[in-house]
Amino acid sequence: MDADAKKTTLRMIPYGLYVLTAVGKDGRMTAATINWVTQASFVPPLVAVGVKTDSHSHAVIDESREFILNVIAKGDNAVAFSFFKPATVDGDRIGGELFAPGAVVKAPVLEKAPAHVECRVVDAVKRGDHTLFVAEVVEASVKTPPSGRADEAICWLKDLGDKVYYGG
Amino acid sequence: MDADAKKTTLRMIPYGLYVLTAVGKDGRMTAATINWVTQASFVPPLVAVGVKTDSHSHAVIDESREFILNVIAKGDNAVAFSFFKPATVDGDRIGGELFAPGAVVKAPVLEKAPAHVECRVVDAVKRGDHTLFVAEVVEASVKTPPSGRADEAICWLKDLGDKVYYGG
Repeated sequence: MDADAKKTTLRMIPYGLYVLTAVGKDGRMTAATINWVTQASFVPPLVAVGVKTDSHSHAVIDESREFILNVIAKGDNAVAFSFFKPATVDGDRIGGELFAPGAVVKAPVLEKAPAHVECRVVDAVKRGDHTLFVAEVVEASVKTPPSGRADEAICWLKDLGDKVYYGG
Repeated sequence: MDADAKKTTLRMIPYGLYVLTAVGKDGRMTAATINWVTQASFVPPLVAVGVKTDSHSHAVIDESREFILNVIAKGDNAVAFSFFKPATVDGDRIGGELFAPGAVVKAPVLEKAPAHVECRVVDAVKRGDHTLFVAEVVEASVKTPPSGRADEAICWLKDLGDKVYYGG
């Protein structure tokens, strides 16, 4: 296989950006920017998210079996960059961003997220350097209804810069 | 859970468009436009694709355990619409589009696809109205190198029209 062709083709997959949050059994919180997300079923509503196996988020979700997917708003590039690095919690802020607890799932909901879904893991595919967590959406909330198409209201990976990719 | 909030939030996930092709053991081919695709690992290179359980593609891939993901080029909306309906094979055309066989995987490569990946299924998550096939990329080819960002070279779901969604 031509490695460049593989890289180029996989980089053609467009992505949105999300802050994935979770809370471990010991109460430690985690939050990380991710982009490998797709819906996986209408009924029941399932999503699949790819999480790096050696990340803090992975350890927490593998244990808690639940997470919240916070949509990053178009234009909120700073939020995406904030959660590329390990997030620290300080009072009602995580990674510098205000949060409140989820309604059903024990994880932070970012104040700035225009929408979020709360999810319970039903399957985990562990085959590579990322685990694909397949999870049922059990709660959802829209704080800022999109004015046009819903997928125009989210920050796209390509919005972060011409050379920014996570894939390939 | 508020059904509208769930629908709106899930529709915020942006997608590219692909023609998923496969060949059954009896030689029957299948080709269908899909959009639920994400990378799932760098090493080994894995992708995950959501395929409707009652579709012809699902029956074929469930049996053959391999498929090709043909990228639909930006502007090629007609190709996307062609493969929303069941595709018929006529000589060297499927759904009216010229094809050639894959290099490693027994499935059609669309002449018009700017790039494609050939994949072997390693896992199938069967939890809802779609199966999530997790597959290793075993071959890749780029016919038309992107002039700018790779994810600008693909037709996006939103390019098909203001009201066109597959998700929610």
